[in-house]
Amino acid sequence: MYNETMLALGQAPSAIRELFAYGARRKAEIGTDAVFDFSIGNPSVPTPQAVTRAIVEATQDDPVKVHAYTQSPGDPVARQAVADSLNRRFGTSYTAQNLYLSCGAAASISMTLKALIEPGDEIAVIAPFFPEYRVWVETHGATLTVIPACSSDFQLDFKALEQAITSRTKALIINTPNNPVGVVYPRASLERLADLLRQKSLEAGHPIFLISDEPYRELVYGGLEVAWVPSLYDDTIVCYSWSKCLSLPGERIGFVLVPPAAHESRQIMAAVSGAGRALGFICAPALFQRVIAACVDEPAQMAIYEENRRLLTGMLDELGFEYVNPDGAFYLWVRALEADAQAFSDRARTHELLLVPSDSFGAHGWVRLSYCIDAQVIKNSKDAFAALMADYR
Amino acid sequence: MYNETMLALGQAPSAIRELFAYGARRKAEIGTDAVFDFSIGNPSVPTPQAVTRAIVEATQDDPVKVHAYTQSPGDPVARQAVADSLNRRFGTSYTAQNLYLSCGAAASISMTLKALIEPGDEIAVIAPFFPEYRVWVETHGATLTVIPACSSDFQLDFKALEQAITSRTKALIINTPNNPVGVVYPRASLERLADLLRQKSLEAGHPIFLISDEPYRELVYGGLEVAWVPSLYDDTIVCYSWSKCLSLPGERIGFVLVPPAAHESRQIMAAVSGAGRALGFICAPALFQRVIAACVDEPAQMAIYEENRRLLTGMLDELGFEYVNPDGAFYLWVRALEADAQAFSDRARTHELLLVPSDSFGAHGWVRLSYCIDAQVIKNSKDAFAALMADYR
Repeated sequence: MYNETMLALGQAPSAIRELFAYGARRKAEIGTDAVFDFSIGNPSVPTPQAVTRAIVEATQDDPVKVHAYTQSPGDPVARQAVADSLNRRFGTSYTAQNLYLSCGAAASISMTLKALIEPGDEIAVIAPFFPEYRVWVETHGATLTVIPACSSDFQLDFKALEQAITSRTKALIINTPNNPVGVVYPRASLERLADLLRQKSLEAGHPIFLISDEPYRELVYGGLEVAWVPSLYDDTIVCYSWSKCLSLPGERIGFVLVPPAAHESRQIMAAVSGAGRALGFICAPALFQRVIAACVDEPAQMAIYEENRRLLTGMLDELGFEYVNPDGAFYLWVRALEADAQAFSDRARTHELLLVPSDSFGAHGWVRLSYCIDAQVIKNSKDAFAALMADYR
Repeated sequence: MYNETMLALGQAPSAIRELFAYGARRKAEIGTDAVFDFSIGNPSVPTPQAVTRAIVEATQDDPVKVHAYTQSPGDPVARQAVADSLNRRFGTSYTAQNLYLSCGAAASISMTLKALIEPGDEIAVIAPFFPEYRVWVETHGATLTVIPACSSDFQLDFKALEQAITSRTKALIINTPNNPVGVVYPRASLERLADLLRQKSLEAGHPIFLISDEPYRELVYGGLEVAWVPSLYDDTIVCYSWSKCLSLPGERIGFVLVPPAAHESRQIMAAVSGAGRALGFICAPALFQRVIAACVDEPAQMAIYEENRRLLTGMLDELGFEYVNPDGAFYLWVRALEADAQAFSDRARTHELLLVPSDSFGAHGWVRLSYCIDAQVIKNSKDAFAALMADYR
């Protein structure tokens, strides 16, 4: 009567979204201030005023133009503005033709996978990884290969990569700064990865693509460098979203970049367009295409996340929790106080603490805390974390 | 190296989008006024002022709230506002739970098909039909069954329906008011269709769904009734978009409605949610969810389309063209002056007339004219149409 796989996906929502929905219900029951919701990556930094100004300015233009269909991959002016911004920042020479404006990061990755995957393909990811990668990879007909990161610092494990990447690997997805761990891969590490992929591509007799999922690119602490991956490895496809850096998660605006140096770049871009058409994704929201064109160089505002990171890590240090110190993004990867992360998350819930267990990220024994929340929530959560710690003493 | 099917879809854009892109290039070459572009359904009626006001009002609220992720199927307040509006208009009793706000009509149909289709399924459409139906049906693994409409008036052909719908048919897609022909199916005709589908479902031993694709619901002439299909047939899934009635085609906002009376309604809705997740479609653009909640009862402004219809049909009458008189939408289905519609469209192009040939709609010997354009374009096109007619004399 209906597709059982889709039913299963709909009935078992992602652990993150499930906890988020639980949090909304729980806040309605006992009050917003009584729930300490570290579940979802909904940016807490206000959208820059330049974005609001760009929206208001758009409403003063001819509405028939503002809200019209654009070309399927997006308005050429908006795409060129994005290309120009990338060129200024990374010394590249992209044009509008290399970009497909998308309905956000999920759409970007889904389209890219749909464009690349052929029967029998494998797509590799580094664990812990964003859980929806599995859903998109399997929906589009490939097998997911899970490659663990180093268990000490969650950086790339080259021995594991060397073993796991084979001629069946169509692409490897990386996500730096990383969700859920917050690590950033240093340039030297990405260069070594590029060398490995070039060698593996040679052995395989076809390019192995690197899909760089970068919604957190601008969200780094202490001015750390996030290397521009396509400059290190030609066959990189960048999937981006302005959700995080412009605090626009609900507006579904991002891009797919297929650099001109990639093998058969034009065909890959055509296949991405074909995938957009096949899935129903053509023409990203038009008003926000215009907003992006106006705000593409707007800097991310890190002060609030810096302060939240300081508050949260200070508090957890004081209470004796173990965590990975994040270089970027707004997630803290905290070691669960028992082996079963789900049980630990359930226990935390009894103290009104909403922490996402690590299992759905492909890792055991940790929880993810999003600290893109009001600083007061962090401050108010101290007693609850103390009580949680006490449960395990 | 990449998926060949996606490459083919990307390299052979839809005939409509191809002509639209040609038109944009041609206008840049010889001037906007010199090209008579009847290619695409980009509404020419200004977005209602209420929409612009709602956008500006949203910018005065807390941006963190306005642009945040909503629940995957959409903000419950916005969904309830849509349910309430449908209930007032059609005497139904829907709730937020019956609605999934989507990134527009393409997303709605793609998600619905993905939710329903199992291997071996057939999806039936009435020809002429919106060409992307084929793309979505085949992408999601079903076979397209093309059922011709009556050749005289393009209404439902019950003999053809009776023959083509079998136990393998998972769903029939209808589109009334119709793109490309502009016909509206009368209530009696839809009742007869409902009877047929009930009988066929009984014979098949499973429900045969009716997918009612309704982006033109509010766009009818002379106050003609467009019956509410779920009131006539329980297993109807409505796919809607505000693209046309609120002139917001670029903003990607619509819905999927699974009525509570449908077989296993809750499971179907869960499968639609699963499909949204699988394809990457969760959370329709948040600002426009809010806009819709505020403007859901805003009437469509038909005066401009009425006037364009009068101008265009008057002109074509005078020149001796044959066409189907449209009851709704903003398309005119005009008989080509030679059997080969593509050749006729190419010939029209030599007079700077951009008319979409009927072949990609699954019909031969016609062209589709979108008259959601500036009235002046229609007036200025007369000499070109006269010259086109002269070519065939």
